[in-house]
Amino acid sequence: MSDIDYNSLDLSFIQVSFDDGILVIVNKVNARNTFVASLIPELVQALEYADKDDRVRVVIFTADHTSPAYCSGANLSDAWHWNGIDPDTIADHDYRDAAGQVSLAVLRCRKITIAAINGNAVGAGATALQLPFDFRVAWAGAKIAFPFASRAVSPEGATSFLLPRLLGYSAAAALLLSGQIFLPTHPLLNRLYFTILPKREDVLPAALTFARELASSTSAPSIVATKALLLHAPSSAEDAHIIESYLFKKMITGNRHDLVEGTKSFKERRSAVFTDTVDHMKEWAPWVG
Amino acid sequence: MSDIDYNSLDLSFIQVSFDDGILVIVNKVNARNTFVASLIPELVQALEYADKDDRVRVVIFTADHTSPAYCSGANLSDAWHWNGIDPDTIADHDYRDAAGQVSLAVLRCRKITIAAINGNAVGAGATALQLPFDFRVAWAGAKIAFPFASRAVSPEGATSFLLPRLLGYSAAAALLLSGQIFLPTHPLLNRLYFTILPKREDVLPAALTFARELASSTSAPSIVATKALLLHAPSSAEDAHIIESYLFKKMITGNRHDLVEGTKSFKERRSAVFTDTVDHMKEWAPWVG
Amino acid sequence: MSDIDYNSLDLSFIQVSFDDGILVIVNKVNARNTFVASLIPELVQALEYADKDDRVRVVIFTADHTSPAYCSGANLSDAWHWNGIDPDTIADHDYRDAAGQVSLAVLRCRKITIAAINGNAVGAGATALQLPFDFRVAWAGAKIAFPFASRAVSPEGATSFLLPRLLGYSAAAALLLSGQIFLPTHPLLNRLYFTILPKREDVLPAALTFARELASSTSAPSIVATKALLLHAPSSAEDAHIIESYLFKKMITGNRHDLVEGTKSFKERRSAVFTDTVDHMKEWAPWVG
Repeated sequence: MSDIDYNSLDLSFIQVSFDDGILVIVNKVNARNTFVASLIPELVQALEYADKDDRVRVVIFTADHTSPAYCSGANLSDAWHWNGIDPDTIADHDYRDAAGQVSLAVLRCRKITIAAINGNAVGAGATALQLPFDFRVAWAGAKIAFPFASRAVSPEGATSFLLPRLLGYSAAAALLLSGQIFLPTHPLLNRLYFTILPKREDVLPAALTFARELASSTSAPSIVATKALLLHAPSSAEDAHIIESYLFKKMITGNRHDLVEGTKSFKERRSAVFTDTVDHMKEWAPWVG
Repeated sequence: MSDIDYNSLDLSFIQVSFDDGILVIVNKVNARNTFVASLIPELVQALEYADKDDRVRVVIFTADHTSPAYCSGANLSDAWHWNGIDPDTIADHDYRDAAGQVSLAVLRCRKITIAAINGNAVGAGATALQLPFDFRVAWAGAKIAFPFASRAVSPEGATSFLLPRLLGYSAAAALLLSGQIFLPTHPLLNRLYFTILPKREDVLPAALTFARELASSTSAPSIVATKALLLHAPSSAEDAHIIESYLFKKMITGNRHDLVEGTKSFKERRSAVFTDTVDHMKEWAPWVG
Repeated sequence: MSDIDYNSLDLSFIQVSFDDGILVIVNKVNARNTFVASLIPELVQALEYADKDDRVRVVIFTADHTSPAYCSGANLSDAWHWNGIDPDTIADHDYRDAAGQVSLAVLRCRKITIAAINGNAVGAGATALQLPFDFRVAWAGAKIAFPFASRAVSPEGATSFLLPRLLGYSAAAALLLSGQIFLPTHPLLNRLYFTILPKREDVLPAALTFARELASSTSAPSIVATKALLLHAPSSAEDAHIIESYLFKKMITGNRHDLVEGTKSFKERRSAVFTDTVDHMKEWAPWVG
């Protein structure tokens, strides 16, 4: 794909900046309930660019740390009239949950994804903008809530799949059925956050430092293969063995630059410089690449 | 369903009381090994009433806090002669595990379920009377054990499904293969208990307070939809997206009382008063309602 | 099976000793990267003996505690030329990952398996030699890493199945995509280790003490049934109920020695002496025994 000029994109709800392998997407609306209909196509588009752009190794999504929230979900005063459309005028099987569309777009992105949760995350802010990411870095004071039962609606954002597989059903049931507010350090959320930071303003810098480490220390095809194995999960040890064997064989053959560099740098006790891109992978593993 | 008079039920093993949306079921036999054959039909019946009775929002199961245990499982001196019947006289495929029957009845109940574990929980007391519930509130001193391998039998109560999905396979294998006793605060049981209390006598009151919060702050159809999504779990993010979209669409349309009230109370910064019932749900989502 | 004389086995890479129901397998090569091609058939053979030998109740795998590592994976200086064979000369679908072969052999073993991780565990040392075991006992200072993405390869050892089911996908993604080093006490590894010990030299003795407890306190057919239920996991509560009912029925009938002894010893308040073997199980549960 020809290089995208991220500075020239016409965006109203998000701001996108690219530097040194890292694409940072900032929700630029300074409000609580920023999960609005117009945000979705901009966010999905940015994730598709990141997926296709070989220069992008890591995507970070965050909000302005002075905003009243990371994202407190949809604006209830719209009474769920998404895009101004009364849902009663939509056929039952034509309706598609907006949060789920974002979750699927994040999951489809083959680059490392990090949610930098520097404020409260509620509703879609806690589902689509948090659960499908590979890593979550959070402010210790962020209020996390899944208040669907308290708003008389049901879970969205592919949460019924993502939350139990991330944390198990004991935590998922407690989080979804209680609808209560939890802090990132609460035992029920144990393991959801890779890093928890005491100050809001430190969340994005910490995510950036981690992103740079990941971008320089990992090989892009390895990340694509690993993410595919996690998302399209083998159903048994036997299933995993035969799929992993094929992928591993392809990774260690064909005189790949990154493989040679990985071994060479290890012997020379220096950092590796990885350059392999991923578009060729679909030729030998169409479900992966 | 016409209103049930819970005080007039003819029960020998459990005591059932209903007040303010909460049905409390107390195992009234003051003994260790209270998981006896006659308990099962009474318990299953009470759970079916709770499922059908629109007034019931939360079901709590507990024991008398002065009893020697919450429930230490079946009485081994019966040598597994359930109901006095020698299992050798039963055809292999006619036998049905009693603990599993209770687990299925708890899972079938569409109301919020809480196990108030105010004493030791062993065998069926730790499986059927604990694992299928939505929330577990426990006494910190309760001895928890799954000693099937030490009694020369195998896991029951749908434990081979429930325990790994609640806690993951590392904890499930350790709990089931060691057969050892663990306290609720043990890291292997991390997340199994929503609340852990230092005194036995405080467990039921804490469960009641929590139950009242849940009964007043959540909408019944939301709970039914959420429980269905957790129990009949989507198998992929795509699967979750299409199922969640349909349920969400139905929840936000049709001018539902609870939805309007949920939004209105949120704007007016007051507690919502939810009144919607759930029997209509089977008309548009037969797998849910 | 006729009794095996473990002292007379012709082994170059592992040392096997049997005493009092416990088979201890020690990786006897004193090096970092001990996961070499010649180790695999010896290890698989030892696990098959343990599976078939009625005298063996528990298998422990460990390394010499003075070795530079428990196992730091394959030797990268071989450039993945397994057994000296250039993988470019192997057809794509003929290649089989060595770590996965070990994982499957450990999972197939019907006896209790314990990994005594008394040093660093990296790559295959952290996958095949750790994840498929029933219990993991670790040295607190052991460096644990899954650095596939940093070596430009992809996960092996059936890790894409085993790691998420042991710990959930949030931890699995963080461990596999970061490739970083973690200590056993790190929250991401919470629950992976049954016991964590401050000194390397105490790991094997602790594993042995635990193994003896398990060997004397559990009935072999119960362990086989429990392991089968965990490995070939029921897909729903209903599925679990019908499978568990059948297994339980067979366990409590037929006047089995261990069942009678389990009940008798419980009544007499003494330790049980279990003697039942497992080969008969395949006659009534071919997927288990």
